Amino acid sequence: MAYINVPKGLSGIRGLLAFRTETARGIGILTEELLCSDVGISRGEREIIAAYVSLLNNCYYCTTSHAATAKYHCDADEEFVLKAINDPENSDLSPKMKALMAIAKEVQQHGQNVQQHHIDRARNEAASDLEIHDAVLISALFCMSNRYVDGLGTFQPKDKSLYDANGKIRAKEGYLASMPQTK
Amino acid sequence: MAYINVPKGLSGIRGLLAFRTETARGIGILTEELLCSDVGISRGEREIIAAYVSLLNNCYYCTTSHAATAKYHCDADEEFVLKAINDPENSDLSPKMKALMAIAKEVQQHGQNVQQHHIDRARNEAASDLEIHDAVLISALFCMSNRYVDGLGTFQPKDKSLYDANGKIRAKEGYLASMPQTK
Repeated sequence: MAYINVPKGLSGIRGLLAFRTETARGIGILTEELLCSDVGISRGEREIIAAYVSLLNNCYYCTTSHAATAKYHCDADEEFVLKAINDPENSDLSPKMKALMAIAKEVQQHGQNVQQHHIDRARNEAASDLEIHDAVLISALFCMSNRYVDGLGTFQPKDKSLYDANGKIRAKEGYLASMPQTK
Repeated sequence: MAYINVPKGLSGIRGLLAFRTETARGIGILTEELLCSDVGISRGEREIIAAYVSLLNNCYYCTTSHAATAKYHCDADEEFVLKAINDPENSDLSPKMKALMAIAKEVQQHGQNVQQHHIDRARNEAASDLEIHDAVLISALFCMSNRYVDGLGTFQPKDKSLYDANGKIRAKEGYLASMPQTK
C-alpha cells in the first residue's frame, strides 16, 4: 500500500497520477513526447531505454511496464527486449543503440559521468544531436519516474500478464490517452 | 560547451529547452505546477527542496538557480536559504520542512530508501498527503533536471549575479512565462 492515500485499485504511477492530476499533466505530456516520437530512434528503442534505466534503478513496476510496451513495438519479440535491457552490449541492438544505452547508463548513475568519449562513440555510430538528447532525457525522466513510484511506496502487482495487457495498449495508444482527467 | 548544438547564449537547462521545444513543454508545465503551487508548503519551501536536491546531486546550475529563487520568496534572506540547503536539520526550517527535506534526501539517493519512519516523522509534524507527495516528486524532478543539465554538458556560468537576477524574475513570474515557444 502506498504511503499516501491514492485511489483504490490503481497501481504504480497510475495511482499517483490520479492522486495529483495537476502534476500528472506535465508528466504525461513529457512521457508522450519522449516515448511516442517517431523522429530518430524508434518507439520500441525509446521504450527499451526506459526499461533499461528502470531496471538499473531496480524499479519493478516501470521495468515491467516499459519492457512490455517495447515488446509490442518490436513485433512481440520478448527475448530481444529482455536481452537488450539485461545485457545491451551483447544484445541484437544496433551499434547506435548500444552507444545510446551506454550514455543512458552513465546518466542513470550521475549526469556528470557522461564524458566526451561516450558522445564520440554515439556520433561514430551516426547518432544525431536529437538522438543523444533524447537518450539523456529518457534516462533522466526515468530517474524521476522510478523515484516517484518507489519513493511513495506504491503497490506494484507481480502478475506479469497485467503489465503485458497494459503494454499492448500503451504501444497502440501512447500515454496521454490513459491519463486521468487533468485540470 | 554542451555536447549537442544548443542555441548560442543560453546556459544550463535554457539551452536544452530551446533545442527541443516539444519536450520543454512537459518539463515547464510540471516545474510550474510543483514549484509555483500555493497549496501546502510555500513556494519558498518548494524552491528550497529543489535547491537542496540539486546540491546533493552536485548540479551547480540548478542549485544556484533555485537557491536564488528561494531567496526572493523568503524576503531575500540568503543566509536562511544557504543554511537550509547545507544543513537542514540545524537550520531555521520548520519541523515539518525538516521532515520533508529528510524524505527528499532519501529519494535523491534511491526511491526505495524511503521508509515508513520517514513518513511517520513527517505526519507527526502535521505534513499532509499532498505535502509528502510534493516533496517526493520535487526531489524526483530534480534528479531528472540535474541529470539533464549535467548529462548534456551544458555551459553553467559562474557569475552568481546572473542567477540572482534570474531568480528574482522566476520568483515573480514562475517558470512557464520564460519557456521557449512550444508547439
